[in-house]
Amino acid sequence: MPTMTLVLLRHGESEWNAKNLFTGWVDVDLNDKGRTEAVAGGRLLAESGLLPDVVHTSLLRRAITTANLALDAADRHWIPVRRDWRLNERHYGALQGKDKKQTLEAYGEEQFMLWRRSYDTPPPEQDPSDEFSQAGDPRYADLGDQMPRTECLKDVVNRMLPYWESGIVPDLRAGLTVLVAAHGNSLRALVKHLDGISDEDIAGLNIPTGQPLVYQLDDSLAPTVAGGEYLDPEAAAAAAAAVANQGR
Amino acid sequence: MPTMTLVLLRHGESEWNAKNLFTGWVDVDLNDKGRTEAVAGGRLLAESGLLPDVVHTSLLRRAITTANLALDAADRHWIPVRRDWRLNERHYGALQGKDKKQTLEAYGEEQFMLWRRSYDTPPPEQDPSDEFSQAGDPRYADLGDQMPRTECLKDVVNRMLPYWESGIVPDLRAGLTVLVAAHGNSLRALVKHLDGISDEDIAGLNIPTGQPLVYQLDDSLAPTVAGGEYLDPEAAAAAAAAVANQGR
Repeated sequence: MPTMTLVLLRHGESEWNAKNLFTGWVDVDLNDKGRTEAVAGGRLLAESGLLPDVVHTSLLRRAITTANLALDAADRHWIPVRRDWRLNERHYGALQGKDKKQTLEAYGEEQFMLWRRSYDTPPPEQDPSDEFSQAGDPRYADLGDQMPRTECLKDVVNRMLPYWESGIVPDLRAGLTVLVAAHGNSLRALVKHLDGISDEDIAGLNIPTGQPLVYQLDDSLAPTVAGGEYLDPEAAAAAAAAVANQGR
Repeated sequence: MPTMTLVLLRHGESEWNAKNLFTGWVDVDLNDKGRTEAVAGGRLLAESGLLPDVVHTSLLRRAITTANLALDAADRHWIPVRRDWRLNERHYGALQGKDKKQTLEAYGEEQFMLWRRSYDTPPPEQDPSDEFSQAGDPRYADLGDQMPRTECLKDVVNRMLPYWESGIVPDLRAGLTVLVAAHGNSLRALVKHLDGISDEDIAGLNIPTGQPLVYQLDDSLAPTVAGGEYLDPEAAAAAAAAVANQGR
């Protein structure tokens, strides 16, 4: 039976990843390392013959630029593009713009890890007047009440899944190879759903930057290989370990 | 009465513009100057408060990258994207990949200018086995009989207009500020249509690279200012003169 092909790609390193700041919805750019990662990810796709027919991105520059660079490197820059805020990174609330190490030191290991990895404990809400708020950003003008002021991973799952169902699954069912260029937590939310990972176990899952993760899905949208397959497994494992150690 | 806002942007200089080769549908990249032009075009949009709500591009890398860079510079990288082959550059037939100066010397001024600027004289057809043919390119797999082997400007008008009507006009009528990132000849075809330029007079119209050209259209889609308005008129005039002198 034919399977459906889904490729997940977390954006390359951003200016704030490198500075170890909580980013969330703040629209920072990739740095040079991140651009290199994106191009390398695209080359891996091309070398593997995994050619996306359509790309879905968040509304954030670091995912959009990653998609642009990767697709250009794979000679697939011309495919249709769809974007949705529901693929955005988790909104980090009042932590957006804060230093991860300083936050760890100020609040202690337990609180820090609750905010970073617990399934249902969001950081404190962000005030709309906060310098790192997106309250007045035109790209979110239509969100109304749905505009988050903070999110835990559970919130991300809940706002991401409607787009999975209405935006991405129809492309998969149409037989298209789908690339999703997004973020650490919106992709964790999707992987949790695809692989049926428990609320507890998702805490231990880290998705590396710039490493294409390929799922073949059966007709019920279940992965034929649990956890999917990285095109470059060794590089992905090393990169995931680096993500797990952030803030240390 | 409110007008509709259409912004046309010809891609920045490409690797083959700089080498003075006929490009057409060959999918060459921007060079560094072209990337700089694209970013400058985006900054002009932002400084003018002309913020696109949607972008339409051809399927060619030099227009797509121009749109990506310009929108990123204008902080509008997140808007919806639509692409269509009908916005592609004119197919230059057997001339694709040929040196413009050598072609001028080999065929003489009269034939050269007929191919470059006459309304209805296409260059010789390209053989599908030509190294610069796009006959097997997957992005055109659905075109069938519509796949050109050469085109004159009249052919470009005829294949571009259906997309203008079905793809671009609906966005304008919905009140969106529309950016079209495309090519010298697909944009000449559109300007000819908008301004009602005759088959003879269109020969003298040159569109400069990287210079946003803004049309305000009334309810009948007629320009409120004939020829539109460049955001930087002096730079646009200088750049248009340089295009007119190509091949010399």
